[in-house]
Formats: sequence, structure tokens, C-alpha cells
Amino acid sequence: MYRVDLNCDMGESFGIYSFGQDEELMKYITSTNIACGFHAGDPLTMRKTVKLALKYNVAIGAHPSLPDKHGFGRRRMDISAEEIYGLVLYQIGALQAFAAAEGSRIQNVKPHGALYHMANESTAIAEAIAEAAYRVDPDMYVVGQSNSRLIKAGARAGMRTLNEVFADRNYEKDGSLTPRSHEQAMIVQSKYSSERMIRMVREHKVESRTGEDIQMRADTICVHGDSPDALQHVMQLSQALTEAGIQIAHPSSQPGL
Amino acid sequence: MYRVDLNCDMGESFGIYSFGQDEELMKYITSTNIACGFHAGDPLTMRKTVKLALKYNVAIGAHPSLPDKHGFGRRRMDISAEEIYGLVLYQIGALQAFAAAEGSRIQNVKPHGALYHMANESTAIAEAIAEAAYRVDPDMYVVGQSNSRLIKAGARAGMRTLNEVFADRNYEKDGSLTPRSHEQAMIVQSKYSSERMIRMVREHKVESRTGEDIQMRADTICVHGDSPDALQHVMQLSQALTEAGIQIAHPSSQPGL
Amino acid sequence: MYRVDLNCDMGESFGIYSFGQDEELMKYITSTNIACGFHAGDPLTMRKTVKLALKYNVAIGAHPSLPDKHGFGRRRMDISAEEIYGLVLYQIGALQAFAAAEGSRIQNVKPHGALYHMANESTAIAEAIAEAAYRVDPDMYVVGQSNSRLIKAGARAGMRTLNEVFADRNYEKDGSLTPRSHEQAMIVQSKYSSERMIRMVREHKVESRTGEDIQMRADTICVHGDSPDALQHVMQLSQALTEAGIQIAHPSSQPGL
Amino acid sequence: MYRVDLNCDMGESFGIYSFGQDEELMKYITSTNIACGFHAGDPLTMRKTVKLALKYNVAIGAHPSLPDKHGFGRRRMDISAEEIYGLVLYQIGALQAFAAAEGSRIQNVKPHGALYHMANESTAIAEAIAEAAYRVDPDMYVVGQSNSRLIKAGARAGMRTLNEVFADRNYEKDGSLTPRSHEQAMIVQSKYSSERMIRMVREHKVESRTGEDIQMRADTICVHGDSPDALQHVMQLSQALTEAGIQIAHPSSQPGL
Repeated sequence: MYRVDLNCDMGESFGIYSFGQDEELMKYITSTNIACGFHAGDPLTMRKTVKLALKYNVAIGAHPSLPDKHGFGRRRMDISAEEIYGLVLYQIGALQAFAAAEGSRIQNVKPHGALYHMANESTAIAEAIAEAAYRVDPDMYVVGQSNSRLIKAGARAGMRTLNEVFADRNYEKDGSLTPRSHEQAMIVQSKYSSERMIRMVREHKVESRTGEDIQMRADTICVHGDSPDALQHVMQLSQALTEAGIQIAHPSSQPGL
Repeated sequence: MYRVDLNCDMGESFGIYSFGQDEELMKYITSTNIACGFHAGDPLTMRKTVKLALKYNVAIGAHPSLPDKHGFGRRRMDISAEEIYGLVLYQIGALQAFAAAEGSRIQNVKPHGALYHMANESTAIAEAIAEAAYRVDPDMYVVGQSNSRLIKAGARAGMRTLNEVFADRNYEKDGSLTPRSHEQAMIVQSKYSSERMIRMVREHKVESRTGEDIQMRADTICVHGDSPDALQHVMQLSQALTEAGIQIAHPSSQPGL
Repeated sequence: MYRVDLNCDMGESFGIYSFGQDEELMKYITSTNIACGFHAGDPLTMRKTVKLALKYNVAIGAHPSLPDKHGFGRRRMDISAEEIYGLVLYQIGALQAFAAAEGSRIQNVKPHGALYHMANESTAIAEAIAEAAYRVDPDMYVVGQSNSRLIKAGARAGMRTLNEVFADRNYEKDGSLTPRSHEQAMIVQSKYSSERMIRMVREHKVESRTGEDIQMRADTICVHGDSPDALQHVMQLSQALTEAGIQIAHPSSQPGL
Repeated sequence: MYRVDLNCDMGESFGIYSFGQDEELMKYITSTNIACGFHAGDPLTMRKTVKLALKYNVAIGAHPSLPDKHGFGRRRMDISAEEIYGLVLYQIGALQAFAAAEGSRIQNVKPHGALYHMANESTAIAEAIAEAAYRVDPDMYVVGQSNSRLIKAGARAGMRTLNEVFADRNYEKDGSLTPRSHEQAMIVQSKYSSERMIRMVREHKVESRTGEDIQMRADTICVHGDSPDALQHVMQLSQALTEAGIQIAHPSSQPGL
């Protein structure tokens, strides 16, 4: 039996500013990446999002970021691995309190935006993130780009990992994402995208942008929540996976506990 | 055998800005109130301060604040009890991660500055703080002004509490602090201050500014760390308490665990 | 010939967060209150909003706030008049640079949210705001609630003032706004609201909630931009004023210069 | 007659946090770089520092930064030139209001920390900074590392410029600063440092770390204010320059106006 997790960024509203369509998407996904107040989110939004995840039996994930609400955590900063460790530990701890307050706990940690990419490129930063997660709870899953430095750092730390792939993105021969600036960066055709996902789950393979088959393990698929047709995309993907006999589930048997 | 705890605000540096004399004072106190990044502090300062507390076997306390670094958490804000719950839960969780990362956990929670006073005056805010602490760890001690709404809210929540007194402050007949604007607000004479503390610990009594004996229970004495003669004051108080046969200790048998 | 200004809060987006419907409303109003980055807004939003105001020949106004993006500037803070002076001067200066960069300058200053109310209640705060505006440009108009302490402070400082009224709010006998908690706080009926506005402009009078005629001068009417039917309301009001022979214009002959 | 300006970063305190020794240094310098609230400083600190500069007849300079108080503006961020334009315009405008409020105006603009270095390396960022300054006041001086992209961008924009050199730093053959990681980065010997400065002012030349004479124009010398012996260094430099017949002055005849 094949299985894959569907994850989505959540809790990215802030104060009076509303963002995303969290509750609608919760019905189709199996794990969340909840903003921890550094790129988005605030305490009451964190509480609301944790409760929503529990209501739909979706795994709670921390989504720590660089400290940059103005830039939504998308701007790289020249920041030491030691600082990253501190920032990530702080944010995971803050979210863990909201999970604990509702009788639950964090299952996943996945860095956000620029920090996600920095963790793909720097072993020191990847290790800082993995260590912070480990020290809060060694049973947490580290979520990172498939086969990235972050996945390897998580494994070296003795943690379980989730190799993440993107349903709407093309890949280069070396396994990296085709840069957004490239005209073929995005996979727009829904049916083709679903077929690629199914093959990644079953065979751990995908065709690169230039036509070669490459290794690409998919433990979890990232679903975007901030586009107008986000809901439709996740419903189509969900249906295609189910029809292909793939179970959509978080690997933890009790996501909410 | 009488016993009292000595607590001090710590970890109030921020980025390049240094504040206080944490390590020197650690040798004389038995519990800390560590800034959680809202009025002061930052992740690496929190880590450093937690490690320092453990080095000197001093109980780790969370010192959550209103979100106001510019005003050092000293400016009241018109903020709902629900928001306070979220802000306090967030901050306790963040510090708990740093404590857990070093193999320890938070023992105390004491609100900072304006939030401390708001918790004396509003039952709803006192309860919000107590509930946030309870949900992270019901074994935590709630630290509040002696006999305040916060102490009562902590007790009602089923938590242990520490009635706090101030070595350098006068009290009114109703048990409140003499306002700082009053010329007799401060107790400047060190010997007299120590005698008052000893009586509070032994007899749960103190003489008010206007001469009446009032009830004043002292489970913990607040020691200030940000004046030039802070270290001298705490050393004198510590010596006087010890000579009076009062044990200086946190009530937890294992402050660092 | 009667004349009245229509003002609206603008530029309240922040980073990726979008708020309001600025361009649509610009066509109907004659002055803006542009967020200066403390409760909302950011540099590029300020630039965009200034350009938009100039495009539609609408007067540029500064909308300074308490420093509270999380609470959208709606939470009162216990902050000294001296600090208010500094915060307001800072924000007016920042916006003035964006106006100057486009060859224009600020015409109005109107405090936002909690600061608006604080300026109604405290003469010291009202004077601090008026002084900050005066020192940037004594030709600026001070916008405040009709007959408020802020209006008086502006006049005492030798500045021109705009008495502001609210199209959708009821007034008490003493000229204050009926609190939002009261069931009759809001004027929901559009036609009745317009009639009240017309009378305020012509006769400087309005019927209070309890039936008495009170003095209420309307130099500028506040139009809300953040409700779904905001555009419809302003269009109806605009039409009613025009049909009543009232010119909708900012008192400055050259709003954009 | 030779002349050189001495500039120093000022106004870098924040809230309760004190930094530097501004008043002592004011007596020896001729222009300030005043923090604008992004890496350090706050409104009342800006006001106080502007007043201090006027008291000592020192030119007021804006010291805009990346938005990073936690990192004191020393961490590079991946931020577009358009954003830089907005951030710098905002900060210059804010400080200009404080200068105007005291009857003065900004004479210089010099980016801080990481932004200073980014302006040396990126023409687009250098031009964004120069354009922001130009739009506030085309008579402002652009201060940048001697012969840097920022100096050139300022000149292209039609502005006056001040080529800045560092009294305590070595230079490479290509005119760049010897990186701090290099053991010969710093010039520690006060007398030798002063001789180098005098030659830069008179001959526009300095000996590079590797022994070659290189072009190095010194219109202004940066003096550091945050070390214990800062005051002594600036006094020695000042005396040496004066004894060499070099006038220490800002090029503007009326720095305070």
C-alpha cells in the first residue's frame, strides 16, 4: 500500500489582515505548517489554527521563519547558524505551547520561505534547524525538499524525515527545482501534475525538465493555499491519488496526539 | 525552619544592547524571571540566560510581557484578556523550548512591568495568565504581588503560587505598594529593609507606611538587578536572612529539573 | 456656496497583506489619511498611495498612529505626550518625504484609531500632535473630531483645522459619539445619514441620539473604506451632497501642491 | 588650505538601552550619522541627538539602515533596489522632520552597516539611495566609501559627495578595505593612522596593505564611537590633523542650517 502526506502552509493571517482559506483546505490535507509569528501569524491566529487542525485530525507542523513580517519571510538574510538555531527553537517552542494547550503536540517542522531554501544550501543551517527540532521533541518529523541537506541533517540527528515535493513545479536534472524565472518552472496542467506525483510516490522517480528520469522521493506533497484555485487543485490531486490507490495520510498513526 | 526565595529579572539584553549584571547576581538568587523577547531579550540571550541559571542551580522563570520593546514593557495597553492569554502562552512556550533544550524546564511564571500591574487589578487578566501557565505545565509556580488577584487566580487554577514582596518598597494600609510618586515610596535603609523582610517571612506581617501592622506574606523577594548598587543590596539582604536563620531557596527541591 | 471635504483612510495594506479598495474610493473623496507604517502601511505602499492621491487630485494626509501593527493602532497605550510628539513627528516626516519625492506635500494630519480618541480626551496629547504637525509645516490642516480638544489645540497653535464628522454614527447630547456598544450607535439608513450630513454642513447642527439639536460643524466627513458596501455608501453620500448644492472639495485650492 | 570632515555614528540608543558616548564625541567631530529607528534609535533619541548636533554646530546626517534592530543593521538582506529606495526615503524623511522641528535640516546621508556595503557593491542599490536623498533635498551630501559605487551614483544624480575613509583600517591594492578577518585589517598604531589620514587629505594617496601607493581621497574620516578608547582616538586624530594645518570642518559653511 502506497501512502503520501499532503501538507499546506496555514495560519498566515496577522492581526486584522486575513490570508488564505485555511478551514476549506483543512478537509483535504493531512499536515499543516503553521506560521509562528515571525513571517506571519500571531498568538490568537496560532491558537485558532491549532484548533482547526485538531478539528480535522490534521497533523500540526511548525513553520518557523526568518524574522521578517514585512517581507513575509521570503528575503534571505545573512544570519549565522547559531542565530538560526535560536530563532527556530523559539518559534517551535511558542507553537508547541499552543499545541499543548489543546492537548496535542507538534508532529512536523518545516522551515518557511527563504529559510527553507537556506536549509537546502547550507549544511550548518540545516543542522541548526534539525537540532532545534530535536531538542524540543526528537519524535518530530523534519520536512524538507526531497533529498536536501535538511533531510540529511534530520536523519543524521536521528529524526524521522518527510521528503517534500511540489505538485506545481518542474525539476532540473540535479534534483533542484527549476527556478521560478524559467519559463518552464511551473507545471500548470493538473492531470499531468497528478501523474507525476503518483509516479514519485510509487517509483520515487520523476522526469526532469530536460527529459531525464531522476530520483525523487515523495513522502509529502506541498499544496499551496494562497491562490484563487488552490482548493480546486488540491481536490483534483486528492482524487487522482485516491484513484491510484495511494492513501493520503500523515505517517503518524495519531496526528492529533 | 523558615525559607524564602530570592528572584531577579534576567536576560534583558537585546542584540548588541547589554543590560544588567546577570552572572554576578546569579550567585545570590534562587529564581530568575527571564525575558521572553517581548519587552527585552532575544533567542540567544534566552539560551545564554537559561544556561547561566542552570550553572548556578537557580530556578528558571518565564517573564512574559506586553509586546513593547521600545517601552520595555512598562506602558499599559488596552488589550483583551484573550489576547493576554495568547501572548503569555506564546512567550512561556518559547522559553520552555530553551529550558527543554538544556534538559530543564520552567519553574515559575511572573508577568513583567505593566502586565504585572494589570494582573493585580484585573481578575480576567490574572486568570488569562494563570491559565496560559497551567496549560504549559500545571506544576509551574505563579509568582505575583503578595495576595494579589494573580496569586488568587493561580490558586483557583490549582497551581502553586509564590507571594512576592519588594525589599525596597513601602506598603499602604490596604497592602498595595506606595506609589512611586510618593516621597516615602522607597525603603532606602538597607538594615531596616532586611528587618522588614525577615518579619514578613517569619510573621507574615509588615508595618505599613502609615504605621499599622498589615498581613504580608513573603514567599519570594524581588531583587532588582539594574542599579549600580544592586549587587551590594542583594548581598546584604542575603546575609541578613541567613543570619536570621532563614533558608534562601526555591520551594522546588530540584530547581534545575 | 457650501463646501465639505470627504476623507478616507488609505494605504493600510502591509507587505503581502492587502487591505481596502483605495483606487476605487479615490474617485469620490477629496482627502486621504495615509498610514505611515506604525499601524499599517510600509514604504512602498506609502509611495503607491501618494501617487494614487496625486493621480486623482486628492489631498495627501498623514495618518499617524500608536506603534501597534498587531492591533492596527486600535489599542490605547499609556504613553506620554512627549513620546506622542516624537512618534507623530517621525511619521509625518516619513510621509512628507514620499509626498516631496512626487513633487507634492502633506495637506492634512489626522491621528489614527486609539490615538484619535486619546487626542479627543487629553489636551496634552492633542497639543503634542498639533505641535508635531506645526513644526513640519504650519500650513497643514489639523483634522480631528468636530469641536474636540485636537481641533482646539490646532487652532491655538495657529493652524487651520477641519472639524470631522462621521456619516454612519449617532451623537450624544454632549457632542460625543454614541459608543459602539450602544444599540443605536450606528446610522444604518443611507438617506437619513445623508440628510444629517447636509444639515451639519449648512446649519452646523445635528439631532442627538436623545432628540436634542446640538452644534456639530462638518468641515470634513469621514468615509469608511473597509466594508464591502463602502463604495456604494460614498457614492450615495456624494450624490446627495451634490444634489443639495454642496461642493465636495478640500479647502486647499491646490490639494496636490 | 586643506580641509577634512570628521563623521561619527550617533543616536544609536534605543528605549532604555544606552549606546555610545554621543555628547563627549560631539565636541570633536563635524558631522553626525544619526540612526533613524531601523537599526537603532527611536523618535526621542532622534530629537535629542539632533539637538545635540545643533548645540555643537555639527552637521546633521541621516544614517538609514536595513530594517533589523535585532541585528543592528549588520546583516545583509536580499532586498530589491525599489524596496531600498522606499526604506531610505522613509528614514531620511523621518529624520528631516526632527531637523526641521529644530529649525535645521539634514546635510548628509550615509547608509549604515550592511546597507553601506551593499551600496558599495550594487549600482542599483547605490542609485536607489542617491535618488531617495535627492528627492528629499538635492543639496544633501552623499557619504560613501571613497570612490565607491555610492559616491559615483551620488555624483551622477547631480549631488555633492563626501569620499569616506577609515582611520583604523587597512586598504587592499584595489582600494577596498582589508577584510576584518585578515590579521592586518586594523591599523592600531595611532600615530601611523594619523599620518595616513594626513596624506590621504593632502595627496589623495595611501599605502595599501601590500605596499603599493593607491589613490584614496578623504573628504570625511569615519570615527568610531562605540569603543572604550574612542574619545582618546578622536582627540589624537584631531590634534594631528590640526598640527598638520588641516582644517576640520564640514564643507557646508553653515552645518546647522
